[in-house]
Amino acid sequence: MARIVMKFGGTSMAGTERIRGVAARVKREVDAGNQVAVVVSAMAGETDRLVGFCREASPLADPREYDVVVAAGEQITAGLLAIALQAAGLPARSWLGWQLPIHSSSAHSVARIEGIDTDAVMAAMAKGEVAVVPGFQGVSDDGRITTLGRGGSDTSAVALAAALKADRCDIYTDVDGVYTTDPRIVPRARKLARITYEEMLELASVGAKVLQTRSVELAMKEKVRVQVLSSFSDAPGTMLVDEDEDGNTIMERELIAGVAYDRNEAKVTLVGVPDRPGVVAAIFGPLADANINVDMIVQNIAKAERTTDVTFTVPRTQLPRSLDVLDKAKDSIGFIQVLSDDAVAKISVVGVGMRSHAGVAVTMFRALADRGINIQAITTSEIKVSVIIAEEYVELAVRVLHTAYGLDAPAEVVA
Amino acid sequence: MARIVMKFGGTSMAGTERIRGVAARVKREVDAGNQVAVVVSAMAGETDRLVGFCREASPLADPREYDVVVAAGEQITAGLLAIALQAAGLPARSWLGWQLPIHSSSAHSVARIEGIDTDAVMAAMAKGEVAVVPGFQGVSDDGRITTLGRGGSDTSAVALAAALKADRCDIYTDVDGVYTTDPRIVPRARKLARITYEEMLELASVGAKVLQTRSVELAMKEKVRVQVLSSFSDAPGTMLVDEDEDGNTIMERELIAGVAYDRNEAKVTLVGVPDRPGVVAAIFGPLADANINVDMIVQNIAKAERTTDVTFTVPRTQLPRSLDVLDKAKDSIGFIQVLSDDAVAKISVVGVGMRSHAGVAVTMFRALADRGINIQAITTSEIKVSVIIAEEYVELAVRVLHTAYGLDAPAEVVA
Repeated sequence: MARIVMKFGGTSMAGTERIRGVAARVKREVDAGNQVAVVVSAMAGETDRLVGFCREASPLADPREYDVVVAAGEQITAGLLAIALQAAGLPARSWLGWQLPIHSSSAHSVARIEGIDTDAVMAAMAKGEVAVVPGFQGVSDDGRITTLGRGGSDTSAVALAAALKADRCDIYTDVDGVYTTDPRIVPRARKLARITYEEMLELASVGAKVLQTRSVELAMKEKVRVQVLSSFSDAPGTMLVDEDEDGNTIMERELIAGVAYDRNEAKVTLVGVPDRPGVVAAIFGPLADANINVDMIVQNIAKAERTTDVTFTVPRTQLPRSLDVLDKAKDSIGFIQVLSDDAVAKISVVGVGMRSHAGVAVTMFRALADRGINIQAITTSEIKVSVIIAEEYVELAVRVLHTAYGLDAPAEVVA
Repeated sequence: MARIVMKFGGTSMAGTERIRGVAARVKREVDAGNQVAVVVSAMAGETDRLVGFCREASPLADPREYDVVVAAGEQITAGLLAIALQAAGLPARSWLGWQLPIHSSSAHSVARIEGIDTDAVMAAMAKGEVAVVPGFQGVSDDGRITTLGRGGSDTSAVALAAALKADRCDIYTDVDGVYTTDPRIVPRARKLARITYEEMLELASVGAKVLQTRSVELAMKEKVRVQVLSSFSDAPGTMLVDEDEDGNTIMERELIAGVAYDRNEAKVTLVGVPDRPGVVAAIFGPLADANINVDMIVQNIAKAERTTDVTFTVPRTQLPRSLDVLDKAKDSIGFIQVLSDDAVAKISVVGVGMRSHAGVAVTMFRALADRGINIQAITTSEIKVSVIIAEEYVELAVRVLHTAYGLDAPAEVVA
């Protein structure tokens, strides 16, 4: 017997027919002898509807009241799933955030889970009752409903799995696992049976949006065995594992877990920036003050005239505002010219194998150069190499790198 | 300065624009120096949507989980109104059923309020904060969400007004008060400035569905001054008052507060019932067992052959089932024949003035007889006389009685 947490996203909960399907899936785990807690999202579209109401009521909605409104979405699906489970013959009850309770910080609408009381729910599960817990919500020390921010239900599931010391946390979603890259671009992309938390974090942060980043961080910290599965098929999913735990497997497999891309970038270059102490702070201070998230930063070496060029990327939607901020700070920074390009993309290769193997980046640079793809900026971390290229080359670059790192599935598998 | 409870129904809360309208109305009361608590219904249609989900999930939904689902409707509007009030410049917060808390019985989906803790909310109101309370919901002793049954928000408002010792409980709805009769039938119907709780109860139970019956009973018991008003106009409403409190006024005004009608009745006559002890139990026992609500019962005096006829009414929708039940019980009852008629209606005149004035019923009988309207059955209570007539005469009977009791508004008012 195992104790497992199952989490179902909005598309899995969209309507009572799908909720009955979820109940059938839960029943299989219970029939297999497992103790089960289920974490649910709101019906697809419902959170948007509720957020829309809040915005209409006031553009500056009080986050405490916003949380009261939007938490209702998960409350509804939690009750409905408990009903559907009972109809499927399983004892079940819903446990709302304030009932468990799921203690959170009081940072309304972006709260963090601080602890979950599990005595009552563990006792109920031990008696064979399925516990249904709305994701995304908690309760603050002063007894107000909180929410964890969009996508927070993944985090709820991982936190509950940690608190319950669950053997597994199965995240059911509308994709059936984590792939080596986007199958729409590379038909021979392969589903990964396993991936380390760190690789998952890097892939998520560069655009492979399977799991919310915070949930992966929490799973890594609490060593929760998370599995990503499809709600709509019985195919095996992808298991998130600890690098140590999975050491042998990692060593034996490819260097690179996957190739990710992100089209939401824009590139800014400040030409002729004075090469003096404090100039970088003069550039990025005003951008930070304007809540603009700067991603990659590249500073060339100083030229003879003691000026340098600084290139960085910002989210594409924030480019106009960024240029405005820089224009206003022109005198204090002292650059000659600002250039920008919003037709760029970021390509990243990710893999813990990089730690022990040199030359991973060189393979990338060569493969791109062979196809005449110019690299405009580079950043590296321990397990990731990212480059900025012209957006028009995105698909080509992803395919070339997928092949270069030996990630393509055997041809017969695709047929 | 007064302390008032304002309650807004589903049509008043249907969408954020109307919710902003509600906020403006609340602001007027606050600006007038009042302490205000607001009780809200779910948006019109929302409770039906949520109930529909529950039925789809299972025809036999667990009432504890049903309550979790449907209580979300009022939670949403409570949060939205708090947001809209803040946007209107008023300090405000929502207090959910479990937060106040509103203690209720654990009879889920038909729970009764047992008490409301008001210390925290009174302190907040004393600081000038508007308290927004979702109607319809409470919390049981074991910490589960309960609901009070359809229309329960009126009861929530009256119970909160009693607990807060409020000076007034204003119920905003889509009609602007209680009328002497249905204005669609009698254009010269008058809005009553005042009505006693008992008259309101009798009018409600015969079809003038302005307030939920339980809320009126509670207001009478707790002596809460309830006012019925329109959300969509500034016309003065109808105040519910205690008979003693209002003694003088009652004595001076017409005998009759209003004329009500109900088309949802069907008449059943059992012919040739043996006139022996226990026969009435033999008739109505099986009907009660089948959850059929028998309303009026008339038993004629025994005839020479020691049989009698028994006539009674049932809700029209339950007539086929009633006939079925009677057919099965035919041997144990021993009647000769069953007659039924679903084209009947009940007409009632209601007024506390009847207590001190004889001849009220006679006026009714004469007025109907003058128009050739045959009375098929009669029942009376202390403050009500009801008759069953052929349904085709409903409008004529209502108009005739409205005039006969002097209730018609002066002609010039109508023009």
